[in-house]
Amino acid sequence: MAYMDSSNLGAMRHSCEHILTQAMIKLFPGIKMAMGPATDEGFYFDFEYNGKISDEDFPKIEKEMASIVKRNLPIAQKNLMMEEARSLFKENPYKMEWLDEIEKKGEKVSVYWTGDKFVDLCSGPHVASTGKVGPFKLLSVAGAYWRGDSKNKMLTRIYGTCFPTKEELDKFLWQTEEAKKRDHRKLGKELGFYLITDDVGAGLILWKPKGAIIRRIMENFIMEEQSKRGFKIVFSPHIGKKQLWITSGHWDLYRDKMYAPMKIDDVEYMVKPMNCPMHMMIYRSELHSWKELPLRIAEDASVYRYEQAGELSGMVRGRYLTQDDAHIFCTEEQVTQEFIDVMDYAFFFLKAFGINDYYMQLSIRDPKNKNKYLGSDEIWLRAEQKIKDAVTEKKVPFIVKEGEAAFYGPKLDFMIKDSLGREWQCGTIQIDFMLPERFKLEYTNSTGKKQRPVVIHRAIAGSLERFFAILVEHYAGAFPLWLAPVQVVILPVSDMYLDFAHRVLANLTKQGFRCEVNSENQTLGKKIRQSTLQKVPHMVIIGDREVEKSKDKDLYVSVRTRTGKDLGMMDIEIFIKKLQELIEKRAL
Amino acid sequence: MAYMDSSNLGAMRHSCEHILTQAMIKLFPGIKMAMGPATDEGFYFDFEYNGKISDEDFPKIEKEMASIVKRNLPIAQKNLMMEEARSLFKENPYKMEWLDEIEKKGEKVSVYWTGDKFVDLCSGPHVASTGKVGPFKLLSVAGAYWRGDSKNKMLTRIYGTCFPTKEELDKFLWQTEEAKKRDHRKLGKELGFYLITDDVGAGLILWKPKGAIIRRIMENFIMEEQSKRGFKIVFSPHIGKKQLWITSGHWDLYRDKMYAPMKIDDVEYMVKPMNCPMHMMIYRSELHSWKELPLRIAEDASVYRYEQAGELSGMVRGRYLTQDDAHIFCTEEQVTQEFIDVMDYAFFFLKAFGINDYYMQLSIRDPKNKNKYLGSDEIWLRAEQKIKDAVTEKKVPFIVKEGEAAFYGPKLDFMIKDSLGREWQCGTIQIDFMLPERFKLEYTNSTGKKQRPVVIHRAIAGSLERFFAILVEHYAGAFPLWLAPVQVVILPVSDMYLDFAHRVLANLTKQGFRCEVNSENQTLGKKIRQSTLQKVPHMVIIGDREVEKSKDKDLYVSVRTRTGKDLGMMDIEIFIKKLQELIEKRAL
Repeated sequence: MAYMDSSNLGAMRHSCEHILTQAMIKLFPGIKMAMGPATDEGFYFDFEYNGKISDEDFPKIEKEMASIVKRNLPIAQKNLMMEEARSLFKENPYKMEWLDEIEKKGEKVSVYWTGDKFVDLCSGPHVASTGKVGPFKLLSVAGAYWRGDSKNKMLTRIYGTCFPTKEELDKFLWQTEEAKKRDHRKLGKELGFYLITDDVGAGLILWKPKGAIIRRIMENFIMEEQSKRGFKIVFSPHIGKKQLWITSGHWDLYRDKMYAPMKIDDVEYMVKPMNCPMHMMIYRSELHSWKELPLRIAEDASVYRYEQAGELSGMVRGRYLTQDDAHIFCTEEQVTQEFIDVMDYAFFFLKAFGINDYYMQLSIRDPKNKNKYLGSDEIWLRAEQKIKDAVTEKKVPFIVKEGEAAFYGPKLDFMIKDSLGREWQCGTIQIDFMLPERFKLEYTNSTGKKQRPVVIHRAIAGSLERFFAILVEHYAGAFPLWLAPVQVVILPVSDMYLDFAHRVLANLTKQGFRCEVNSENQTLGKKIRQSTLQKVPHMVIIGDREVEKSKDKDLYVSVRTRTGKDLGMMDIEIFIKKLQELIEKRAL
Repeated sequence: MAYMDSSNLGAMRHSCEHILTQAMIKLFPGIKMAMGPATDEGFYFDFEYNGKISDEDFPKIEKEMASIVKRNLPIAQKNLMMEEARSLFKENPYKMEWLDEIEKKGEKVSVYWTGDKFVDLCSGPHVASTGKVGPFKLLSVAGAYWRGDSKNKMLTRIYGTCFPTKEELDKFLWQTEEAKKRDHRKLGKELGFYLITDDVGAGLILWKPKGAIIRRIMENFIMEEQSKRGFKIVFSPHIGKKQLWITSGHWDLYRDKMYAPMKIDDVEYMVKPMNCPMHMMIYRSELHSWKELPLRIAEDASVYRYEQAGELSGMVRGRYLTQDDAHIFCTEEQVTQEFIDVMDYAFFFLKAFGINDYYMQLSIRDPKNKNKYLGSDEIWLRAEQKIKDAVTEKKVPFIVKEGEAAFYGPKLDFMIKDSLGREWQCGTIQIDFMLPERFKLEYTNSTGKKQRPVVIHRAIAGSLERFFAILVEHYAGAFPLWLAPVQVVILPVSDMYLDFAHRVLANLTKQGFRCEVNSENQTLGKKIRQSTLQKVPHMVIIGDREVEKSKDKDLYVSVRTRTGKDLGMMDIEIFIKKLQELIEKRAL
């Protein structure tokens, strides 16, 4: 995509908002314009109006806007004297309030004229004339408090957007539309994946059966693959003494994300925001020789972190997250190879789940805020170099981002793109020279001397909740067969075929498939629609033809997919083989 | 076993303690006897003595005791006047303190004479003469504060025991000895199963890799078997609003076991002591028809409960426990069958883990403390009857225990006996008419009316931590092959055979076995000893003979078991088949 640079795009959108204002003043006399900025996704316009305006009015408004664009009116900035401005906007209390503030701050009064009929108090920037505004679209109408303060008057807000080209606008509109349809919060409810309820608490996700089974498959996948790669699992409690996080440094530098301590027998305990200190304790519980390193321990654990209520968003950002966490204890010489191995596993992991578009982000310290981090410059440089060595070795492209490091060390983050092109941070690999020092970890090296190991922190899905949400949106809820909560639904044409349907069910269940019979008293058409909405990959239809053709153990079934493909009638053994192949390949 | 009734056993042990006192006064002049009662496991004797007494003195003391028994001295009670008693015990400040208290309470002064030489202040009861004391044994010596108060003087305590018959004494001694060897706290450390450290907090268990892998196998077993039985898994957060437990009634009746609330955005949240309210929320998040019932949801979840520091004991009683929890939502008519199905699963579960000796306990209300429970008499009787129907149907014996019910309903508990004959409460099945009412749960019955479901709460392992601890002690750490953390250890006779050892490792690992190579520079003898101590079921020995006989992919190995059995040299394929058979049968 060839976006204009962001300041130009902003100017164009801001001009488009002025055009909207001008159009509305013409169409809805009596409107009082309040404010209207450009945003990352377009623009909005807040106004006061006594009548009703809905999205049914959009075509009319857009037509008027188009005519303003067509006339290619010049947009010109002018500085005014305060008196002059007050006289110009004297009918509009919102603009008068702005002027009061401008006066208080002693700033200049800037206005923009569009042609010679429309003027607004505005500091710009704008494009030179209305003809320079690209394709636009009004999106929605909503209420909004004046200046966002619920103590102020409720105004009306119209959202719109504008792009340099029709292609970009169309892509955005498609993306927005698709994103709405795929929103994991919408699908999560429709497909029974999860529940967030105020009774339990904001951001506290409950995985319902159809989500939980997918989480369990993900966990089994993770456990199995990690075990092949030499990781050993552990389990640690969800609470621990506050001192653990004082020692780790989290209490000093991460406290905002931690919940309040609670006292047990007069000692303060915390709900864990991360597992690190627990894993350090496990390492420290035994003596270690260099021969045992790298020692890799992994835990599938829910950690509890405070997020502002306004930041919460379904499973993407909750008040806890389940990490596929691991810590690798190794010698400094082993770091690069371990790092590479973790990257390989991450590539394998993402591919298995159908995520093929991602890049790396090397997150380093904010050089202007070194006090937000532990450790010396020298240690940070060494750690950063280790990561660069690993990515260089793997020849993967990466970008560098300042200020995104963990407080104990730099990290490599996996930025994944979903099917709508949106970016998400998921996996992370972090090098840490600090915690081994703070927890006094040791191993005996080959010369018999005590030495500190290095710790690599890593999580690949990152948060099972967030990763699951991304998958829901990526697949629009239509999970590949190996992940689908129900893999096959059996649809008897009528109650007459229920027995046969249950024989088919037993047969498929025995092979380990997740199946259901829809025994409701409905037409086949309705059952198919229902199963399609539930995104069940395969439907097996049982009627006269299938029963007639079947003999003894030789069952015949007609198969249909959720995309509407009719695979015809086949021996159940052939169907089973088809399913097994799709699962093997982790295909749709 | 034909124990005497407990009061007789107590009298005999108390008399044995007097005999011990008498013997020690003779052998260690200057001793000041303080106190000595009978206990559930024997007796003890506290005394003050300036010299040293250790278990090396036990044979001498036991010999003197035996001689007192042999003389069959009469043991006779006598009431004394206070003056008389004070004169008798004037040299002994401990007895004088007792006398002060007896005087204050206005009680009678009772003494027991053994023959005419030894007398002690004592309210009995005792056996009639020293000859009536059965086989005895001194067990250990320890320090103990006078009257258990650390502000008082430290005394010496000798523990001993005594039984009616030699067989009973021997069994007890064997059990004690075995229990010490099998103690999961001892084995847990030696075999690397778990860690409890003051840094994390008392009772907060960390599962180390070798324990965690067994937990994971248990969890997989549970998930798979539950799924076959129609249970659907869910996951719920470890914290939730306090109101949940107010609604459930736990806050009123179970608060002592709950940790302090913590505030999030000014609302009080609790670390969950159980999952029930969360599962009620999941049920309530959708409308339900009678056709969907029974609805069975299961969660493998750690719940956090406060236990007094003094009550904590390794993994048997910690400050959290991981429950194989489930809730069945069903109609009242379905309760009995569901209850029976759960019992069947419990039988299957216990058998799979090698526990064959157990019985049922029907835990009902304490009829004298009905205010400790929710609900009417009528509801309790109905629920109790359902459980009785189920156990009657299954023809399993059960005992009834008052006061052991949950506050919301009666329950059937599984009391299991381990290899030492000790009893543990593990699984539980509970019928609950209360929570559905309190959480306003509903389903639409076949006539279209709203109705409350019944809830069956159940956990079969109960606590994975406790169940694991019992297994450790039951198997003395030598887990059956399917559960063993390391199933096969490969022992090359020298470094020369390391390559071959790793070929064997790769071969076995590919088949899914948990294997290790011991590549340390040690003698084969030492390696075998080490593996035996680590209770690894099978050792594979690689030396000249094995390498010579092997050709291409046709590997030969010599196999030895942890019990010292030499299975000889065999083709690795045959060995693999042997292993697979043992795993299939869940054999040792």
